[in-house]
Amino acid sequence: MAAPPLAGYSCYAHFVVTSPRPLVAHVEINRPDKLNAFSRAVWLEFGRVFRQLSGDGGVRAVVLSGAGERAFTAGLDVRAASQEGPLAATGGEGDGGRDAARTAKALREHIEEFQGCITEMERCEKPVICVLHGISLGLAIDIACCADMRLCSSDTRFAVKEVDIGLAADIGTLARLPKIVGSTSWVKDVCLSARDFSASEALAVGFVSQVHEGKGAAVEAGLAMAGGLAGKSPVAVQGTKELLNYGREHATADSLRYTTVWNSVALQAGDVAAAMAGMFGKRRPTFEKL
Amino acid sequence: MAAPPLAGYSCYAHFVVTSPRPLVAHVEINRPDKLNAFSRAVWLEFGRVFRQLSGDGGVRAVVLSGAGERAFTAGLDVRAASQEGPLAATGGEGDGGRDAARTAKALREHIEEFQGCITEMERCEKPVICVLHGISLGLAIDIACCADMRLCSSDTRFAVKEVDIGLAADIGTLARLPKIVGSTSWVKDVCLSARDFSASEALAVGFVSQVHEGKGAAVEAGLAMAGGLAGKSPVAVQGTKELLNYGREHATADSLRYTTVWNSVALQAGDVAAAMAGMFGKRRPTFEKL
Amino acid sequence: MAAPPLAGYSCYAHFVVTSPRPLVAHVEINRPDKLNAFSRAVWLEFGRVFRQLSGDGGVRAVVLSGAGERAFTAGLDVRAASQEGPLAATGGEGDGGRDAARTAKALREHIEEFQGCITEMERCEKPVICVLHGISLGLAIDIACCADMRLCSSDTRFAVKEVDIGLAADIGTLARLPKIVGSTSWVKDVCLSARDFSASEALAVGFVSQVHEGKGAAVEAGLAMAGGLAGKSPVAVQGTKELLNYGREHATADSLRYTTVWNSVALQAGDVAAAMAGMFGKRRPTFEKL
Amino acid sequence: MAAPPLAGYSCYAHFVVTSPRPLVAHVEINRPDKLNAFSRAVWLEFGRVFRQLSGDGGVRAVVLSGAGERAFTAGLDVRAASQEGPLAATGGEGDGGRDAARTAKALREHIEEFQGCITEMERCEKPVICVLHGISLGLAIDIACCADMRLCSSDTRFAVKEVDIGLAADIGTLARLPKIVGSTSWVKDVCLSARDFSASEALAVGFVSQVHEGKGAAVEAGLAMAGGLAGKSPVAVQGTKELLNYGREHATADSLRYTTVWNSVALQAGDVAAAMAGMFGKRRPTFEKL
Amino acid sequence: MAAPPLAGYSCYAHFVVTSPRPLVAHVEINRPDKLNAFSRAVWLEFGRVFRQLSGDGGVRAVVLSGAGERAFTAGLDVRAASQEGPLAATGGEGDGGRDAARTAKALREHIEEFQGCITEMERCEKPVICVLHGISLGLAIDIACCADMRLCSSDTRFAVKEVDIGLAADIGTLARLPKIVGSTSWVKDVCLSARDFSASEALAVGFVSQVHEGKGAAVEAGLAMAGGLAGKSPVAVQGTKELLNYGREHATADSLRYTTVWNSVALQAGDVAAAMAGMFGKRRPTFEKL
Amino acid sequence: MAAPPLAGYSCYAHFVVTSPRPLVAHVEINRPDKLNAFSRAVWLEFGRVFRQLSGDGGVRAVVLSGAGERAFTAGLDVRAASQEGPLAATGGEGDGGRDAARTAKALREHIEEFQGCITEMERCEKPVICVLHGISLGLAIDIACCADMRLCSSDTRFAVKEVDIGLAADIGTLARLPKIVGSTSWVKDVCLSARDFSASEALAVGFVSQVHEGKGAAVEAGLAMAGGLAGKSPVAVQGTKELLNYGREHATADSLRYTTVWNSVALQAGDVAAAMAGMFGKRRPTFEKL
Repeated sequence: MAAPPLAGYSCYAHFVVTSPRPLVAHVEINRPDKLNAFSRAVWLEFGRVFRQLSGDGGVRAVVLSGAGERAFTAGLDVRAASQEGPLAATGGEGDGGRDAARTAKALREHIEEFQGCITEMERCEKPVICVLHGISLGLAIDIACCADMRLCSSDTRFAVKEVDIGLAADIGTLARLPKIVGSTSWVKDVCLSARDFSASEALAVGFVSQVHEGKGAAVEAGLAMAGGLAGKSPVAVQGTKELLNYGREHATADSLRYTTVWNSVALQAGDVAAAMAGMFGKRRPTFEKL
Repeated sequence: MAAPPLAGYSCYAHFVVTSPRPLVAHVEINRPDKLNAFSRAVWLEFGRVFRQLSGDGGVRAVVLSGAGERAFTAGLDVRAASQEGPLAATGGEGDGGRDAARTAKALREHIEEFQGCITEMERCEKPVICVLHGISLGLAIDIACCADMRLCSSDTRFAVKEVDIGLAADIGTLARLPKIVGSTSWVKDVCLSARDFSASEALAVGFVSQVHEGKGAAVEAGLAMAGGLAGKSPVAVQGTKELLNYGREHATADSLRYTTVWNSVALQAGDVAAAMAGMFGKRRPTFEKL
Repeated sequence: MAAPPLAGYSCYAHFVVTSPRPLVAHVEINRPDKLNAFSRAVWLEFGRVFRQLSGDGGVRAVVLSGAGERAFTAGLDVRAASQEGPLAATGGEGDGGRDAARTAKALREHIEEFQGCITEMERCEKPVICVLHGISLGLAIDIACCADMRLCSSDTRFAVKEVDIGLAADIGTLARLPKIVGSTSWVKDVCLSARDFSASEALAVGFVSQVHEGKGAAVEAGLAMAGGLAGKSPVAVQGTKELLNYGREHATADSLRYTTVWNSVALQAGDVAAAMAGMFGKRRPTFEKL
Repeated sequence: MAAPPLAGYSCYAHFVVTSPRPLVAHVEINRPDKLNAFSRAVWLEFGRVFRQLSGDGGVRAVVLSGAGERAFTAGLDVRAASQEGPLAATGGEGDGGRDAARTAKALREHIEEFQGCITEMERCEKPVICVLHGISLGLAIDIACCADMRLCSSDTRFAVKEVDIGLAADIGTLARLPKIVGSTSWVKDVCLSARDFSASEALAVGFVSQVHEGKGAAVEAGLAMAGGLAGKSPVAVQGTKELLNYGREHATADSLRYTTVWNSVALQAGDVAAAMAGMFGKRRPTFEKL
Repeated sequence: MAAPPLAGYSCYAHFVVTSPRPLVAHVEINRPDKLNAFSRAVWLEFGRVFRQLSGDGGVRAVVLSGAGERAFTAGLDVRAASQEGPLAATGGEGDGGRDAARTAKALREHIEEFQGCITEMERCEKPVICVLHGISLGLAIDIACCADMRLCSSDTRFAVKEVDIGLAADIGTLARLPKIVGSTSWVKDVCLSARDFSASEALAVGFVSQVHEGKGAAVEAGLAMAGGLAGKSPVAVQGTKELLNYGREHATADSLRYTTVWNSVALQAGDVAAAMAGMFGKRRPTFEKL
Repeated sequence: MAAPPLAGYSCYAHFVVTSPRPLVAHVEINRPDKLNAFSRAVWLEFGRVFRQLSGDGGVRAVVLSGAGERAFTAGLDVRAASQEGPLAATGGEGDGGRDAARTAKALREHIEEFQGCITEMERCEKPVICVLHGISLGLAIDIACCADMRLCSSDTRFAVKEVDIGLAADIGTLARLPKIVGSTSWVKDVCLSARDFSASEALAVGFVSQVHEGKGAAVEAGLAMAGGLAGKSPVAVQGTKELLNYGREHATADSLRYTTVWNSVALQAGDVAAAMAGMFGKRRPTFEKL
């Protein structure tokens, strides 16, 4: 249970990164006393963690979860947001007389930086499994939408909460959620109403793939899934992630062409031979670092 | 039950618009003796109603339903269609000798006008909840696809009926339905076969979000949902609708950029402060007209 | 059961094409001793069969299934692939010293040809119903994704198997699967893990529309569905397929415009009148060849 | 010179529409005392004129010019703009305390309406030749970008003037100009610097197709060009305009497909036969109304 | 002058293919008595010639010209078109009573096949230089638009002639011409008016890159240009063509990504080393077959 | 001439940044002894310089030029490239036995980083004027394509040189050049042949906007142009750059919508009032920092 820390990740203040299984990284949001809420310092680190994992040849699959029993994350650290950054100075007397266009520029920079940090998880070249539990509000959904697969514990309390604090979600939920679940009627319902939804509802609409009893079981399932992926050809796994992400954003003809060019070099890896040998030899194949 | 008429909407011949709750408009298709079928006069009014609602600062959420017990709408008024417009003169002796290209131009104008009127519901800046019941064929699906959320009574009889009258649906179903439910296999089945499907099937595939016993309960649920949305920040609600609609049509990177620009001014509203105050003050926040 | 052969299709070595019902073609992959695996000769024929069906005025709906009890198809004929084509010479000593760029060109040509043959099924202008049973691995999914509707027997064993042989699927699954089922979390799970999934799981996520007990019942259901479509207006059915496929790849405004132009001539067919007459006359309408 | 008024267009206050040649409409912006500047009343009429011309079977080509010797148009009527509409109330004390988000909504509605009216000229199904002369600033360029061909007199003084009044052009120049001339370096220069450019510079970069000495000669050349187009097959001319506009906005494969569907009915017109007969018979062909 | 035939191309009836320089193919349209007009047999061969050249490792650059002194090509063989194919039966009594929708299907198939054959020249992986002279009407422009570079003799008489025979050009001119020259005003002028334009006008607008005195000099210049390209790295040349074509059709971010993937294998060729060695060694580098 | 250094930019080793005019930054590539060639250290700094300028409220326009008389830049520092990074290890014995797929991953990371650094100039929110002179090969063109306007001295020797060193240009030229000059025939010629082209040819095709005698005059013209832009409303200038860049990448309807949202807040700046006051008051307006 006390997995060893992953070498090279001890510099982070808000994240604990361990290696519970070979080639698997487990990232924990580690601010349990704040319900794992995100201040700017947290999201800047979040981006850096995933950029580092993306380039780390010793990692082949990643699990993200939240520390503590109560929350994956309660979302934006509203108290911090009201004291730092452009939001602090908006709509009130504190903006030093800037006009709306100049305030807008500051807000654009703020939102872009924030979006950019969260998007690093989607851009991470290794598969990322997000395991949610407990309070999972607002930013929790933006983050989960950037993962490849979503698992949760049965006690998870989800909500796209932003409308209830007077704004449209702007860190990715509204752009990505309609692309990752099937029913737009459901997407609009939860995004417009900001109502809670449960683990079983999340499973029924396809937002999560599995529900487990309790956070421990959910994390364990995530690690098992990650362990399975880590044992496979990284050329195959990372190529599959890249091509699925590309396919989501492009028309079919474009995707087929990109696939062709991508695989024209990927197929020159030694992994097909290794996988075949493993399959017929009834032993576990090993694959070179990628 | 006898909700007061909404001021400014008494000019419509085929629609009754009432205000059963503050800031909520209830639009009823009001041709029950014709099973609420649409002639050209009806769809021209339909477009005008939703254009007016979109710009009406006194409305924050809309419910659409059909008057009478038998039908939400039976779709195109086939009798009227056979007597008016270009369809009347197509494929027969009545086209006065026009060649196929000239007939096609008239048909393009006809289809574009018709599409344009129905699309006004999708373009309406307020959330629209469509409550279906009874007979809901053909155009009923085109219309429902333009709503944000779909509810229905358990007795609803749905069908994408157009193939059975010898044509491909052209008022939006084929463009929108694959984008709003998950299973293309199901979409193709119901669109190609023109078969009926039930409320429970519609719920299972995610076409509707809720099924209620009887039309009355379904409409009541729609009004309750609308009432909830009407009490929230209109900047947040309308922004969420805009960004979800944009997200459905664009790649993620484009959507994130658009979101950034959109929220760079939306965040300058007073609504965040009002919502926060309401949240902490345990009283219902009020929001300025938008 | 022993349906008559469809005239003009006896030239194929690996496919049997019969006409069990009027205007319906039943295509069987006919290599049961190889579990219907695909060598290059098989996929070249596959492309030709569907190109011919697309232009055959005597066919209005197509069913595809696999001969024998054991497999729809086990996918790529790995033995053949290791002896023919560019894969044979890749990553090993057999490539005669070509550099990686020149090998890549050969691989691009190989992949494009293979993709092109399978895509012919998607481009076939008649609706295609794919009936899967038994072993349905790898290429089986690429093929099924090109069909309009998918049915299966309860014993079907599905897997996007490619990762387990060290490569990312490149014949279409990764481009199409995210567009035809709702849950991306599920898509990533099965594509990255290469795990088996069952008929009931395929039904639950919307990959297939129906599950039947045993291959016989599934094929029969497919033929019945095809028979139903074959009796309808071919202008309506083929237009519906075209517009749904177009809609999946384009934004809504573009789709509406294309629909307008398409129907500006399709509505000039005699099919609307024929369908109407059939509807009111209570007899089965007949439609001219298309 | 005193061409007869075109029937049905006498209702416009700011535009004179005459028919100097058969099937040709000549639209003049008729506010010479205001240098043909546009107030809201003017652009609303502008949209209506071109919508009417688009549907007028008696018109096959259109010329747009400005009345008087001094200006095609000096652009936005700044005085009117400062007294009407949302601009009047922006950035100052006059906005009644609306927050920036609510002001933005009013501005969006204002800009969309304005863009929509000018875009009607681009959407007009008949070819439109814009003849510029004298002062042609700001909105003059937005308008000219919506024409199919641009001619001018040698004394024309062009400028994308908006930057000099503190804003980015928002009625179409920045969206369209990069698509209709070749050199982006030149486009950025004139749009960022707001500097004047001459008729000969406009010709050199391809913004205009012809320069003539004096307004009279330029208008005459425009009418001659329009007269030539009016004598040709309207199916061919209007189809060519549609397909060129479509081609500018879409990738080549999409354009080829759209062209195929478009011409599948356009080729069924009688115009090919009429044109052929005219060509071989050495007499001027006549074409049916479209 | 009498260049040797290129091996493997003697099967073509309407094209002569020679190899006047090493690794260069010279394709001549060889129907001078018909002014090199295209019947269906000609365009089917045209597609096959370029498909063969695309895959021919012994060819690194291609020149296309027309045999005889009078014409590059006069375009569609109108006489043949009026006797064969769907055009023969359109708009007249000869269509055997087919309705407009069924005629449209035949026309779609006809246009798609025709477009597909001409597009093979654009898809040819080797650079293609089109040398025009004399009569170059209608289809001549569609063809020239598919080349990489265009040269012509000073006597060339160009026209996008289709409007004058009552139709909108549908083999590619309207989709491609706006993408390959800078001035849309000019494009619309020549496409709508069907007027002739000269070699010097073509040069001024950037449609052709060079004008030479007489056909002989123009062809010689084309062969010299092709000879230069044939001596360069085929990995570099063919990659450059692919990436420029891709860039024309996609947004910049997409193009950069595709470029990255493409070059991730192209840079593994031996060509960089060979080119460098050649550059520093002052001798002509040689490159392996591609 | 000895302009003062711009505060905050003294940390760069390869770039000198001065402020020759108020609010103008002049960036010089400062490796004249290496003909301003780019090693990895240089392009990493290049990206940082432009990111800093983009966010620097004290800068409103930027000029980029090369130090020394001989070269703007000779492009990639080939010697450095052969010793560092993945190129060093490609295609030879030095790659430690990595397979082609693993080498490709390293190359992708290398190309993406390189592209990203150069693209920072395009993303810089202030207008950038690129002044070229002398040797301007390879990467010089990639860089120049990211500027808003291009000027040059008459002695400039341009070439898209990459094909001559055995590769397709991959830092942006092939993606951007077809979008910024009019003639694709010319683009393909210079990109495929790698031939030199002169200042006057660059002017004729619209690649540069001005040619001046000698580097000094060209730089002076660039600074004058920058000075002019720096005196204008930054809301107007930066908005115009943003909207033109957006317009180049999107269809017109999308651009118009984005423009609407952008200007809905930009118009709330004080700049319109300031510009107007300046215009009528005949004094130079001043604008607040942005």
